[in-house]
Amino acid sequence: MMREAYLDNYAATPVLPEVREAMLPFLGEEFGNPSSLHSRGDAARTAVEEAREKVAALIGASPEEIIFTSNGTEANNLAVKGISAGSRRKGKHIVVSAVEHFSVLHAARSLEKQGYELSVVPVDEYGRLDVDELSSALGDDTVLVSIMTANGEVGTIQPVAEAARIAAEREVPIHTDAVAAAGFLPIDVGELGLSALSLSSDLLYGPQGVGALWIKRGVRLIPMLDGGVQEGGRRGGTENVPGIVGMGKAAELAMEQMEQRNAHLAGLRDKMIAELPQRIEHLYLTGHPKDRLPWNASFAVEFIEGEGMLLFLDQQGVAVSSGSACTSRALKGSHVLSACGIPAERAQGSILFSFGLQNTEEDVDRVLEVFPPIVERLRQMSPLYAKYLKERGE
Amino acid sequence: MMREAYLDNYAATPVLPEVREAMLPFLGEEFGNPSSLHSRGDAARTAVEEAREKVAALIGASPEEIIFTSNGTEANNLAVKGISAGSRRKGKHIVVSAVEHFSVLHAARSLEKQGYELSVVPVDEYGRLDVDELSSALGDDTVLVSIMTANGEVGTIQPVAEAARIAAEREVPIHTDAVAAAGFLPIDVGELGLSALSLSSDLLYGPQGVGALWIKRGVRLIPMLDGGVQEGGRRGGTENVPGIVGMGKAAELAMEQMEQRNAHLAGLRDKMIAELPQRIEHLYLTGHPKDRLPWNASFAVEFIEGEGMLLFLDQQGVAVSSGSACTSRALKGSHVLSACGIPAERAQGSILFSFGLQNTEEDVDRVLEVFPPIVERLRQMSPLYAKYLKERGE
Repeated sequence: MMREAYLDNYAATPVLPEVREAMLPFLGEEFGNPSSLHSRGDAARTAVEEAREKVAALIGASPEEIIFTSNGTEANNLAVKGISAGSRRKGKHIVVSAVEHFSVLHAARSLEKQGYELSVVPVDEYGRLDVDELSSALGDDTVLVSIMTANGEVGTIQPVAEAARIAAEREVPIHTDAVAAAGFLPIDVGELGLSALSLSSDLLYGPQGVGALWIKRGVRLIPMLDGGVQEGGRRGGTENVPGIVGMGKAAELAMEQMEQRNAHLAGLRDKMIAELPQRIEHLYLTGHPKDRLPWNASFAVEFIEGEGMLLFLDQQGVAVSSGSACTSRALKGSHVLSACGIPAERAQGSILFSFGLQNTEEDVDRVLEVFPPIVERLRQMSPLYAKYLKERGE
Repeated sequence: MMREAYLDNYAATPVLPEVREAMLPFLGEEFGNPSSLHSRGDAARTAVEEAREKVAALIGASPEEIIFTSNGTEANNLAVKGISAGSRRKGKHIVVSAVEHFSVLHAARSLEKQGYELSVVPVDEYGRLDVDELSSALGDDTVLVSIMTANGEVGTIQPVAEAARIAAEREVPIHTDAVAAAGFLPIDVGELGLSALSLSSDLLYGPQGVGALWIKRGVRLIPMLDGGVQEGGRRGGTENVPGIVGMGKAAELAMEQMEQRNAHLAGLRDKMIAELPQRIEHLYLTGHPKDRLPWNASFAVEFIEGEGMLLFLDQQGVAVSSGSACTSRALKGSHVLSACGIPAERAQGSILFSFGLQNTEEDVDRVLEVFPPIVERLRQMSPLYAKYLKERGE
């Protein structure tokens, strides 16, 4: 059987064995509802609270400021909608960057339909927030700024501390979507001066189906899920105990191993970024050349379409994505590449290699071997490439 | 070690071994994101779609009408808020019963704060919906009726088919919270004439952290979680693949085994209902004497408080709850018992024995043995009981 080179860790990561081990008792003998008043409830509650401490520790927060959610998307929706609703009386203006994940951007668009005013701050060619534009976007009626910690699609790290300083001057709460960054960039919410931060378990090698929103004490939040008094009354519904325990363990391991993980991942990333352009013409790195996530090597391959590359690579046992997994089935152009000013004919050929702990240099070598002939083959079929050659007189 | 009698299956159920087996590959080798375009994504997507078919089959629905959520509370919130928002132009009046779960009732109260009009339809002494009152509550501007299939706290089965007929006459969509009932009562959404139905995995012996909303094709729904195009654009966010697979397996088993499960559970329930009142004075069955869930034996014990009973029973290895687990830590009086017209001094002594597949007659015998002396002991300390005795001249 062909060796699989799984390079789509931004879409899904394998749950670490230690994480699975931590979860299993809660899918077995240790079942219980944290809200129950008996001993079995106590055990479940203790497990959830220990997980809360571990997740809080990863970002330098207090455990009671952590709200467990069902994924990063819910955390982002809760932050954007919940904080805006909580300060409705102050104003109805919100500010986000042009490269936010759809769970921030579309949540903000929903608010716009409900009468909020939305400012979308542009980014530079690397997908990096324009802080001057952010500053001038803020007004007296601004109730929320949301700027991601780093962009998962092109890897660019955002100037979040600077954004937070600007927001603080105007006394506006600032939320950051740290889903793609947490566990890879050291994050201290106090030092950064943030008001809220979203996390997802699966990007940390924890299970799918669990995420978290950190929200600073004092920032008013209207819940989305009304019901019981779980999560301090900020999110009703029986807790996903095994999932939360898994996320806690994953957060703990991510904190302990951050340095060694990053060295490994950045090594693979840098090899790909250094060597792939030598083998494929008209291939461009997207995102920031230096300030980027250690696991992210994203490119645009001119004259061909992302989907074709994906399917041919899949036949060769190489799993990748074309931008964000959340949008891959929507088959739309990437709003992130478009915000970077990358023309549509180049952006359509976007490809993301997202590295994970299980990857090795062999996986990069496999791509270096099989990818160039695929590009060659697709270009032979590409009318855009034929036109390009003709214009060059070839 | 003392044998544990776990009789709090409404709060948490053990995941069935077959369900855990079905989930494990997706917490291991079979990890993947259903949105990915490569083979690994295909495998995850196929698993989710198979689970969707199994959940749909349990309620006689079409798979594409199932939206997976993170629990029953999210399903209820999505139904109440999403359907109301979807027909905002038609009107702003919603109708629920007085005994709905807090995830329906509080969601409706949130809408009330946003300018909706809310009618809460009363129930009889058994917690059964007054259908005449429902009928007169409906108006031309009513956009949603929500009546639960059965009440988990007191076990009463609601006349949902009749409610659906009444709603249909006025062309109002009707949602039912079937969290406590699904897997125990045969449900066919078409036959019942429903528009939407909520489910939770954990009540089916599936994992925590997953639920589902069935919504009939053609009923307009505004999503709560904006983001990617998952779940047909009706719920953004990466799917909880292992959880969904677990819920699918749990639904399949629930359907296959419904008859034999119910015979077992109803046997335990009936033994408890027949024998406990013989051993404890001033103990009253709550909910309907006949039309009740097979797993539910709920009582009110006069002159004492639920919490004390729970803690003493816990010391004897008997785990129970006092009403709904979701509210047990809020330590408030039950809105369900209050809606049944049970006076507060009786309702405060509510106790729920919720039976599960793992329970045996021994568990009932254990309660029959240890519970009467606990009640006796608590009554000795009760000023209300002293007053009662004095008034009787004892």
